[in-house]
Amino acid sequence: MNTVDRYFEDYEIGETRTSVGRTITETDIVLHAGQTGDFFPHHMDAEWTATQPFGQRIAHGTLIMSVAVGMTAGDINPQAMSYGYDRVRFIRPVFIGDTITVTAEITEKTDHTKRPDTLGYVHEKVSVVNQTGDTVLVLTHLYLSNKRALSATS
Amino acid sequence: MNTVDRYFEDYEIGETRTSVGRTITETDIVLHAGQTGDFFPHHMDAEWTATQPFGQRIAHGTLIMSVAVGMTAGDINPQAMSYGYDRVRFIRPVFIGDTITVTAEITEKTDHTKRPDTLGYVHEKVSVVNQTGDTVLVLTHLYLSNKRALSATS
Amino acid sequence: MNTVDRYFEDYEIGETRTSVGRTITETDIVLHAGQTGDFFPHHMDAEWTATQPFGQRIAHGTLIMSVAVGMTAGDINPQAMSYGYDRVRFIRPVFIGDTITVTAEITEKTDHTKRPDTLGYVHEKVSVVNQTGDTVLVLTHLYLSNKRALSATS
Amino acid sequence: MNTVDRYFEDYEIGETRTSVGRTITETDIVLHAGQTGDFFPHHMDAEWTATQPFGQRIAHGTLIMSVAVGMTAGDINPQAMSYGYDRVRFIRPVFIGDTITVTAEITEKTDHTKRPDTLGYVHEKVSVVNQTGDTVLVLTHLYLSNKRALSATS
Amino acid sequence: MNTVDRYFEDYEIGETRTSVGRTITETDIVLHAGQTGDFFPHHMDAEWTATQPFGQRIAHGTLIMSVAVGMTAGDINPQAMSYGYDRVRFIRPVFIGDTITVTAEITEKTDHTKRPDTLGYVHEKVSVVNQTGDTVLVLTHLYLSNKRALSATS
Amino acid sequence: MNTVDRYFEDYEIGETRTSVGRTITETDIVLHAGQTGDFFPHHMDAEWTATQPFGQRIAHGTLIMSVAVGMTAGDINPQAMSYGYDRVRFIRPVFIGDTITVTAEITEKTDHTKRPDTLGYVHEKVSVVNQTGDTVLVLTHLYLSNKRALSATS
Repeated sequence: MNTVDRYFEDYEIGETRTSVGRTITETDIVLHAGQTGDFFPHHMDAEWTATQPFGQRIAHGTLIMSVAVGMTAGDINPQAMSYGYDRVRFIRPVFIGDTITVTAEITEKTDHTKRPDTLGYVHEKVSVVNQTGDTVLVLTHLYLSNKRALSATS
Repeated sequence: MNTVDRYFEDYEIGETRTSVGRTITETDIVLHAGQTGDFFPHHMDAEWTATQPFGQRIAHGTLIMSVAVGMTAGDINPQAMSYGYDRVRFIRPVFIGDTITVTAEITEKTDHTKRPDTLGYVHEKVSVVNQTGDTVLVLTHLYLSNKRALSATS
Repeated sequence: MNTVDRYFEDYEIGETRTSVGRTITETDIVLHAGQTGDFFPHHMDAEWTATQPFGQRIAHGTLIMSVAVGMTAGDINPQAMSYGYDRVRFIRPVFIGDTITVTAEITEKTDHTKRPDTLGYVHEKVSVVNQTGDTVLVLTHLYLSNKRALSATS
Repeated sequence: MNTVDRYFEDYEIGETRTSVGRTITETDIVLHAGQTGDFFPHHMDAEWTATQPFGQRIAHGTLIMSVAVGMTAGDINPQAMSYGYDRVRFIRPVFIGDTITVTAEITEKTDHTKRPDTLGYVHEKVSVVNQTGDTVLVLTHLYLSNKRALSATS
Repeated sequence: MNTVDRYFEDYEIGETRTSVGRTITETDIVLHAGQTGDFFPHHMDAEWTATQPFGQRIAHGTLIMSVAVGMTAGDINPQAMSYGYDRVRFIRPVFIGDTITVTAEITEKTDHTKRPDTLGYVHEKVSVVNQTGDTVLVLTHLYLSNKRALSATS
Repeated sequence: MNTVDRYFEDYEIGETRTSVGRTITETDIVLHAGQTGDFFPHHMDAEWTATQPFGQRIAHGTLIMSVAVGMTAGDINPQAMSYGYDRVRFIRPVFIGDTITVTAEITEKTDHTKRPDTLGYVHEKVSVVNQTGDTVLVLTHLYLSNKRALSATS
């Protein structure tokens, strides 16, 4: 883990990074139920889910989202902080044994409304695909980022 | 945990439910780092964070979001499924020992674009406050919900 | 999770509630060994258990008991507290992948010996069955419960 | 961990063993909530419990019971198996930071009703005390044990 | 767990103890990744490892080492403490579902350089084999041990 | 996490990297006890350790070693694999709340005995210091590494 200063100006639209893969295990689901308190049978009951359209237990949406966001944590950047997420969409279910890979692409940069000289938002689109190449989750991660120009003088 | 059928028509704008409290512990943060692989010093290094503006370790955003969403999991509703989240915003940091409470309010109902006769989206605004009453996180949880009328005849 | 005041008088003999199902996983066993320190090969050694009459690893008794009791935790009742358990009996082993369902029935109400006017015990029989309908565990959960009549005047 | 054959006849009324100590931590409570799904505020909400008579979070009864039973797991005895528990009683609450020690004493031996020649029950009273010497939990652990005499000839 | 005083003089070259078995599970690997932050695809990505020479996920070296050393923790000896390890060698990979057994043999005793009258090192060779009898890990565990003679007079 | 091919020839004696910090928590110790089965009172009993020279609970040696090695996991290098550790030495205890930082330095390169043309060992000295700058653990991590020259032609 390295610490690298990157300012708003340093992010380029279209720049992309891709993670290695990670297999989502039964353990991950049990641990996530334990962390969140969500023991819905959709995630925890192999017998009942076998009678449902999907046919098996499904990972929690917040599990896949949390793991995917974690897989995009690369360098530490003191000039940006996580501000929120937009349009988180669960496209397909993730099953036990599926392997996900995450791609993150800078798609937009916008100014901070009240402090446009010193702050802006970097929009990073996070796409999660499974081992067959199907997209299972997309979201836009917003970073509140310092601008280089005026930060330097303040 | 009870199973209760609620259709799109059954949700009323303004209906609200509030959770009991849950204290966010050091354990939660360590477990969430372990689940996501995000060991950023913001969450894991008490010495370094003591030198930073916030002065102490901060819970992961995805931890608070996952726990808060889990705290809203009440009855099982076979007529609705989690579709995604909009405008997830981290308003204030959550520290070790903070106790969060979650309020969920139905704020909007919209038709499904392609299948407006049978499906709609229920928008539930989730607000997370800490023990001093300050809001730390807000998000809108979207449920894709069956409509009663036409479901009944299909 | 709701908070509902129920007094001793409010419980009726024969009232029954049944949980959804939960699959007992290898993860549950590993976590329970880790929590209790019980790493007996009956729970942890797939090779050795394959040579034994049961033929495979068996869940800890305290795991099934803890999960089953947890599955009966419904509303929060400020007028009652867990007092203990009677006649906990392990009827059949639970294996990895078995799915358990829990039924709880009020079977008896008895007065508190020293304070019969204000306190009583509610006896709830907890029965755990697996996916084939076989009972694997029974126990009687005792709640020490406030009585309504005199509580109101005290 | 050693494997030692001990038959019904080998257990003597009054024989006693005492564990080392173990401190019950906030981590244990969070993990037990996660394993059982019991997130009652009595265990998880430091703010609310501060307003209650006990003044702080309380360990789950099944946590203390599971840990205590685990602390009595010594030698592996192929001639006995855990049959159940009688009269489990929660005497005092266990708080975060309390250190428990467990004493187990053989208090009774009874014949198996249907197969008295070959099987019997060994009753072991398990007592859990905290760091101030107060008893917090008692229970009787029943082992179904082979008898030496007839086992040898069968 | 018993407390037994054993001094340097009490250890004999060649004395050996062997553990029961323990199956290494997917859960163990996921938990170890979570504890250490090592999410390398060698341990976590079933798809990618299927394309590699070993063909499947491999347990972390530090997982097997930690578990194996833990499996040798028997009696508590107030007269010795863990000083370090020499020549830790990973001979073969451990896969999910492998069952390991640990043998520990006292192989050498050496004096402490500066305090040879009162202290010495007990060298214990730890060998880990899998279910097919193949050695997967060896290491030498060094204990710094009090000598009986002069300890008694000091 | 990036994948970068580095051959034996690419490592330079003296090259050094330093991690960010990580605070060792009570949670880490409880989880490590749970993973390894080592519940020695040195790690788990706050009351007893308060009467001992160190005065408080001590992290397991294998915990600090596992975390430290994990903290050195940077880029994925397909040309090298972990071969073992030499001279692991626990210099000082690590207590709950201590924050460790890890430095790794390439200190030596040696040929493989039987295949010196294609393989060699890269020796990396790992040093772990706490928040006061005291060294708590040192070890030498050995990597078995492909050599570039002949690999290219094979």
